[in-house]
Amino acid sequence: MLRAAILGATGMVGQRFIQQLQDHPDFKIEALAASERSAGKRFGEAVEWVLETEVKPEVKEIEVCPATVEGVESSAKVDVVFSALPASVAAQVEPEFAQSFPVFTNAGAFRRASDVAILIPEINPGHLEILKKQRRERGWKGFIVTNANCTTTGLVLSLKPIMDEFGIEEVRMVSMQAVSGAGFRGSGAISAMQIIDNVIPYIGGEEEKVQYEAKKILGELRDGAFKPARFRLDVSCNRVPVLDCHTECVFVETKEESDPERAKEVISNFRGQPQKLNLHSAPERPIWLMEEENRPQPRFDRMLERGMAIAVGRVRSGAARKSLVYVSCVHNNIRGSAGGSVLNAELARAMGYL
Amino acid sequence: MLRAAILGATGMVGQRFIQQLQDHPDFKIEALAASERSAGKRFGEAVEWVLETEVKPEVKEIEVCPATVEGVESSAKVDVVFSALPASVAAQVEPEFAQSFPVFTNAGAFRRASDVAILIPEINPGHLEILKKQRRERGWKGFIVTNANCTTTGLVLSLKPIMDEFGIEEVRMVSMQAVSGAGFRGSGAISAMQIIDNVIPYIGGEEEKVQYEAKKILGELRDGAFKPARFRLDVSCNRVPVLDCHTECVFVETKEESDPERAKEVISNFRGQPQKLNLHSAPERPIWLMEEENRPQPRFDRMLERGMAIAVGRVRSGAARKSLVYVSCVHNNIRGSAGGSVLNAELARAMGYL
Amino acid sequence: MLRAAILGATGMVGQRFIQQLQDHPDFKIEALAASERSAGKRFGEAVEWVLETEVKPEVKEIEVCPATVEGVESSAKVDVVFSALPASVAAQVEPEFAQSFPVFTNAGAFRRASDVAILIPEINPGHLEILKKQRRERGWKGFIVTNANCTTTGLVLSLKPIMDEFGIEEVRMVSMQAVSGAGFRGSGAISAMQIIDNVIPYIGGEEEKVQYEAKKILGELRDGAFKPARFRLDVSCNRVPVLDCHTECVFVETKEESDPERAKEVISNFRGQPQKLNLHSAPERPIWLMEEENRPQPRFDRMLERGMAIAVGRVRSGAARKSLVYVSCVHNNIRGSAGGSVLNAELARAMGYL
Amino acid sequence: MLRAAILGATGMVGQRFIQQLQDHPDFKIEALAASERSAGKRFGEAVEWVLETEVKPEVKEIEVCPATVEGVESSAKVDVVFSALPASVAAQVEPEFAQSFPVFTNAGAFRRASDVAILIPEINPGHLEILKKQRRERGWKGFIVTNANCTTTGLVLSLKPIMDEFGIEEVRMVSMQAVSGAGFRGSGAISAMQIIDNVIPYIGGEEEKVQYEAKKILGELRDGAFKPARFRLDVSCNRVPVLDCHTECVFVETKEESDPERAKEVISNFRGQPQKLNLHSAPERPIWLMEEENRPQPRFDRMLERGMAIAVGRVRSGAARKSLVYVSCVHNNIRGSAGGSVLNAELARAMGYL
Repeated sequence: MLRAAILGATGMVGQRFIQQLQDHPDFKIEALAASERSAGKRFGEAVEWVLETEVKPEVKEIEVCPATVEGVESSAKVDVVFSALPASVAAQVEPEFAQSFPVFTNAGAFRRASDVAILIPEINPGHLEILKKQRRERGWKGFIVTNANCTTTGLVLSLKPIMDEFGIEEVRMVSMQAVSGAGFRGSGAISAMQIIDNVIPYIGGEEEKVQYEAKKILGELRDGAFKPARFRLDVSCNRVPVLDCHTECVFVETKEESDPERAKEVISNFRGQPQKLNLHSAPERPIWLMEEENRPQPRFDRMLERGMAIAVGRVRSGAARKSLVYVSCVHNNIRGSAGGSVLNAELARAMGYL
Repeated sequence: MLRAAILGATGMVGQRFIQQLQDHPDFKIEALAASERSAGKRFGEAVEWVLETEVKPEVKEIEVCPATVEGVESSAKVDVVFSALPASVAAQVEPEFAQSFPVFTNAGAFRRASDVAILIPEINPGHLEILKKQRRERGWKGFIVTNANCTTTGLVLSLKPIMDEFGIEEVRMVSMQAVSGAGFRGSGAISAMQIIDNVIPYIGGEEEKVQYEAKKILGELRDGAFKPARFRLDVSCNRVPVLDCHTECVFVETKEESDPERAKEVISNFRGQPQKLNLHSAPERPIWLMEEENRPQPRFDRMLERGMAIAVGRVRSGAARKSLVYVSCVHNNIRGSAGGSVLNAELARAMGYL
Repeated sequence: MLRAAILGATGMVGQRFIQQLQDHPDFKIEALAASERSAGKRFGEAVEWVLETEVKPEVKEIEVCPATVEGVESSAKVDVVFSALPASVAAQVEPEFAQSFPVFTNAGAFRRASDVAILIPEINPGHLEILKKQRRERGWKGFIVTNANCTTTGLVLSLKPIMDEFGIEEVRMVSMQAVSGAGFRGSGAISAMQIIDNVIPYIGGEEEKVQYEAKKILGELRDGAFKPARFRLDVSCNRVPVLDCHTECVFVETKEESDPERAKEVISNFRGQPQKLNLHSAPERPIWLMEEENRPQPRFDRMLERGMAIAVGRVRSGAARKSLVYVSCVHNNIRGSAGGSVLNAELARAMGYL
Repeated sequence: MLRAAILGATGMVGQRFIQQLQDHPDFKIEALAASERSAGKRFGEAVEWVLETEVKPEVKEIEVCPATVEGVESSAKVDVVFSALPASVAAQVEPEFAQSFPVFTNAGAFRRASDVAILIPEINPGHLEILKKQRRERGWKGFIVTNANCTTTGLVLSLKPIMDEFGIEEVRMVSMQAVSGAGFRGSGAISAMQIIDNVIPYIGGEEEKVQYEAKKILGELRDGAFKPARFRLDVSCNRVPVLDCHTECVFVETKEESDPERAKEVISNFRGQPQKLNLHSAPERPIWLMEEENRPQPRFDRMLERGMAIAVGRVRSGAARKSLVYVSCVHNNIRGSAGGSVLNAELARAMGYL
């Protein structure tokens, strides 16, 4: 059992980390860190719990510590750190933790670093190799592994089997994103007045994140350097009145002749390392292929395999000769955030990095 | 034409003040005050306009000034001040303005003061008398007149004709309140994650406000002192996923024998000073009686008479011998806030206080 | 193991019956009956499954039969019948089944019959006694037991401990009801155009149902006749944009002096026959007392004890001397419909009626 | 003044026709036709009015007639017919009317006919020429002119200036469509249970309609035959929880080198025949260009120019060399349905066809 700390534990992603870890066979929650305002309180008092499942009583009893190395170390002995910190805080704090601890983060602060992998275990497990370089050059005993942005996650998981089979020339994607991606409440959150009976056709920075991350994840790590995948990618991100789960409409131009029936096969049969290694949080099928004409739908499909599988439907060919069109759904706060990071830690453990 | 300043002009209630005043025959917007962050900018740049109708170009051009007496005075010469300030700021700033200016406020800071009227022109126009005492004892050249809380407004307007006809012994009211009552966005606003697919059965301080205000408004001003109306009042306030307009289910025990048909008559025929004086913002009928079994409904009835009339429906008798049950709807951000204050100013003007 | 048929299996309540019964230790689903349109198809094809949990594969394989005695009997041998039929169909069909089978129904067709119990096992288990009279006078080998309307269920469960402790003189209740109560889609369902950004302050027939049912359930069965409880009851029912779970604001005038602290105790400690008998579907605590000032909330509290417990919060005294005010939440489609009927069957079995 | 009949007057599109025509300087509502169920009633009784503005008293008094030629003719003398009939009924009834009357229809029944124009006055006013052939070959004294599907309307209006300036090679579009497109309530409407907290990524037949219609509208009429525009078009249609207004994310590959600044200019300056002819319902600017990064938004922009203008924003270049990306919003029930047909009639009148 590895002893885990969660940074940013009171927020919505922090709560998802607790949900993923409180019954985990390999990790045990030992420390919960949050902002100064919460530090010193029992977690049960500090948190406004907003998930549909319960926190365990023993977790409620943990005293919240500050989100600093000293704070965590004086709270409990830990082996691994999960971070749900906001990007600006993460930029400061995560490197300090990485000097001593493996850090699996949901924050975007280091996704663009040339020695940090954006890991999705079914797609690019080999990118973990970068850790050697990262530790060596930074002089860290620990390391940082990031997950992908939630929107990126839904896109690249669905693109991977298509790329493997047909190659990819160009992708256009329109997302319809859940409000939970912006937090539960407070100044950053989407307000009811903004989104009820409305669509907001813009999410600051999101499109650039998807464009960068997708190519890095689907690219190669060669000679210690990431070679991004080469395809054109246009993205248009929208916020819609949905609580959890991002829906994405995708148009792909493939390199080779593609056909929908074969595409459905490779999507449906797609498996990766987590499935081979039988990792605890791994979905049996990373992508569920839906044959109903009106699926996937976020409210009905977001909890497939406890929120760890994505759903793909309406696979058809486009007007261009070598093209595919489809819809995917991903639970932004499970597979697309905390669940993704926990799966990353499970992979790292299975591959001997922990 | 009286020259008007609006304090808190960039917020949602401030915007409603602009909406009410920018085409007004008696008032002309001369100064727009807001927080330091906005001061110095053109209003058109400072504001995130969120109403369904447009701001006029000349209003957009006004330079926002700080919400202080000096700020406003150095911006323009004004005769009257409308305040959409948050209560905590209003508590400080409004008395300073009242030394020189008539202040018509939507803030709750002074509603409980023994020399301040909570004015609803159709109900208690005589309460304006208190201004003499207020000015004399406070040594003000100006004065403060408050409107009622939005939820109170919907309740007391519907109770007034019933009280006049049958007397009132006891009232129970359950409100289903719109999210706009908590602001458009930011830390105080209701977030989408809080309210989509949900009801929040609590609004901090709201029930106490309604209980206090309703009795003061429906009470008498005698010998320079407010004598609250004497009836028992229980209130249970809920937030629901509605953008604008509070719906209220009301149970009334009357003093005298009451019957629904007569109640409908007095509700439907109810008129007050604003109607007699033909004030600009006055609805022709302050209360619209609905006979359809499933009305009023907030989305369909909130804009009756430009949001200045309330709607009452489902008038029936209750299980107790002398009792009435009904539903009312009030536009919380027009009749229940800015529109109410503008009507107050119109009444004060017609009665020679301006 | 008793073999069960479900009538109206493809509808939303029918699906909830399947959800409750497909893993049940005492009942086994053998027959699924629905309208002519579905009869003859595999259930998996006939149904548009709309619940968040999956149907088991063996249930999907059952061939749907017509909702007639012959239809069910030629489909499988069954011992007990659960009915999710619409009231008008139930009025015809349920008596035919009752000639041979015990029928546990969610339909309202027989709730007003003088020899039919509206059963809520925690409240009136003794009302099952009426079955002797029912069978004798109707010449039935089987019988009919109904559950209560969903709105009634939330009300009477919360009133029961209060009535036992303080007595009840008068009750006013305002409901904010979920759209699932009107069905998933089709002509009877609430449309998005009707309810988004809106409240509908009327539900046809609902208020009369609650008024009748609550008194029958909380009343006594004496000498073979139901003596309704004697208290005045006013109800105002609203539809709000919530998917599942009815929220109810309740004002109670008690017979004896009441105080909120004692009320909280009796609510919190309330247990009934299902808890004593440890019935499979029984919640450990039928009523969860919430101490947070803004709970219960439908989205967060509807699934307490798998949807079988109700939640009560904001218990306080009212303006009148002997009065209590509170809020309750009940999952209308689990405790308030299929789950309630299954619990009824479990009680009947434990008491030897099956 | 031309005397007008409205077929399907009680439905939501029918109500929009009334809204557009009841204050029209050129048309006067004389007959209102609906299904047998409504025929014979006063319109005020027959209709469940669901728009935000009022029906005029004189319109309420009109007696509803059956939607047949005899029905209308025995109700009033009319010069022109507006049809809001469902497609299946329209297929039968509209040709009968066309024998004697000009028919401006919102129904899709004849959009694919080789002698029927899908008219959008700003784009293809010349397509009215087909009427000569239509009348000659069908032997009609009247004629049929259809508007476009609501989703098509938003797309082609925004594509027109781009096509004129840069040419179009390929278009991908993802729509996020309002629930009002499926009707107010009843079996065809989107239910609250289907769409609250959800997205439905499929609308039966919609994608094919857009693909067909867009090319016909943007194509040419040569020698009495429609030559569809030649570009590839992929469409993915979604239903979202929005009441009115379709939002569309569009990716365009242009023929010529394109740049966003020039695109914004041509979009913003775009005008057509309705503007030149100063038609009553014509928006001053058919397309409003939005410069804010998060606009257009359906709730805030759907009523631009009384719902007759569309809004386009976020104009940018895509990853491919000759490409543009943008977002558009169109009021599906005004510009995209009844308002569009009324504008068609105004154009036809101005061009001498009436």
